[in-house]
Amino acid sequence: MPERGMLIVLSGPSGVGKGTVRQAMMNSGFRDFKYSVSMTTRKMRPGEVDGVDYYFRTKEQFEEEIANGQMLEYAQYVGNYYGTPLRYVNETLDQGRDVLLEIEVNGAMQVRAKCPDAAFIFLTPPDLDELKHRLEGRGTDDQATIERRVAKAVGELKMMSNYDYAVVNDKVELAVERIESIIKSEHLRVQRVLDHYTEMLTHAK
Amino acid sequence: MPERGMLIVLSGPSGVGKGTVRQAMMNSGFRDFKYSVSMTTRKMRPGEVDGVDYYFRTKEQFEEEIANGQMLEYAQYVGNYYGTPLRYVNETLDQGRDVLLEIEVNGAMQVRAKCPDAAFIFLTPPDLDELKHRLEGRGTDDQATIERRVAKAVGELKMMSNYDYAVVNDKVELAVERIESIIKSEHLRVQRVLDHYTEMLTHAK
Repeated sequence: MPERGMLIVLSGPSGVGKGTVRQAMMNSGFRDFKYSVSMTTRKMRPGEVDGVDYYFRTKEQFEEEIANGQMLEYAQYVGNYYGTPLRYVNETLDQGRDVLLEIEVNGAMQVRAKCPDAAFIFLTPPDLDELKHRLEGRGTDDQATIERRVAKAVGELKMMSNYDYAVVNDKVELAVERIESIIKSEHLRVQRVLDHYTEMLTHAK
Repeated sequence: MPERGMLIVLSGPSGVGKGTVRQAMMNSGFRDFKYSVSMTTRKMRPGEVDGVDYYFRTKEQFEEEIANGQMLEYAQYVGNYYGTPLRYVNETLDQGRDVLLEIEVNGAMQVRAKCPDAAFIFLTPPDLDELKHRLEGRGTDDQATIERRVAKAVGELKMMSNYDYAVVNDKVELAVERIESIIKSEHLRVQRVLDHYTEMLTHAK
């Protein structure tokens, strides 16, 4: 039986560029993972393909999946459901392949509760880093601007604290490199490796 | 004040090639860390330079450093002391630079007790991986050989369980790449980043 794959959860505040970073990861040379296509009840847009961009389903179909416990996570936005079908994730992990989810923060917290050993990556807007430089430089912003930025940053830090890693999306290719380092490094964590070796040695006796 | 650097501890069983991997890291393009030169009471060998290969000290000098609490970790091997002076490590971390220690497993456990937020990397011999392939292949070794290998592997796994990461030293350049991923990735861990941002925002108010 192959070593079980790793679940990688890419999330972050809306508008941070999760989709762009995920696409860039899928087009990169690294590409050592499977992307879990989300399910939605929103209408298909021109150019979108069922099963590639989303699994497009009716509200009734989606609610049946929920009722049958077939959704790893789901949420409603602007009257439509979005979520991750459980089956593809489990089957792919069982085949020893890593699975990437690109989901909203609400959904990420549902996954955290069910799969605590997944790697949780929070994509942050460059605001936080910019804010840091501005605060360090001083005198370049008025007090009201600084206070507004600080309040926004505090909210983002509160979300971030539920994740394992924080990746600044300053440039897409840099964000992708950082995420690749995280994936490689997470595979070397003793807590992941040890179980595998221990099981191997137990079977050897 | 710059963000405090990260302490990276490279360790593993004797003979695994820690020194070779460390040298390769220092010669690599990455080199984004300072190496902490160890202190020893053993005699200088031809070609060695004081302050580069080791700080060469007398037994009395070394014991005075211990008595003054100036050693981060130390141990005796074959009648000589080996250890890490605390001052260089602290000063370099305070300057915001990462510090690499390459030390024995005994010393690594002393550092673990004092600096729990360091990144602990266990370099493993390829035996473990070879063992895995042999066990999976079956029938290629006799029972006694397998049992001896399994006993050795169990001992190594017990040591490994005290570390954060396990890196197989199959090829030096691959081991170096893996360690570089770990260092990059550890800098993105929320627990490291969050403190820094929280402090920044607290000061901004």
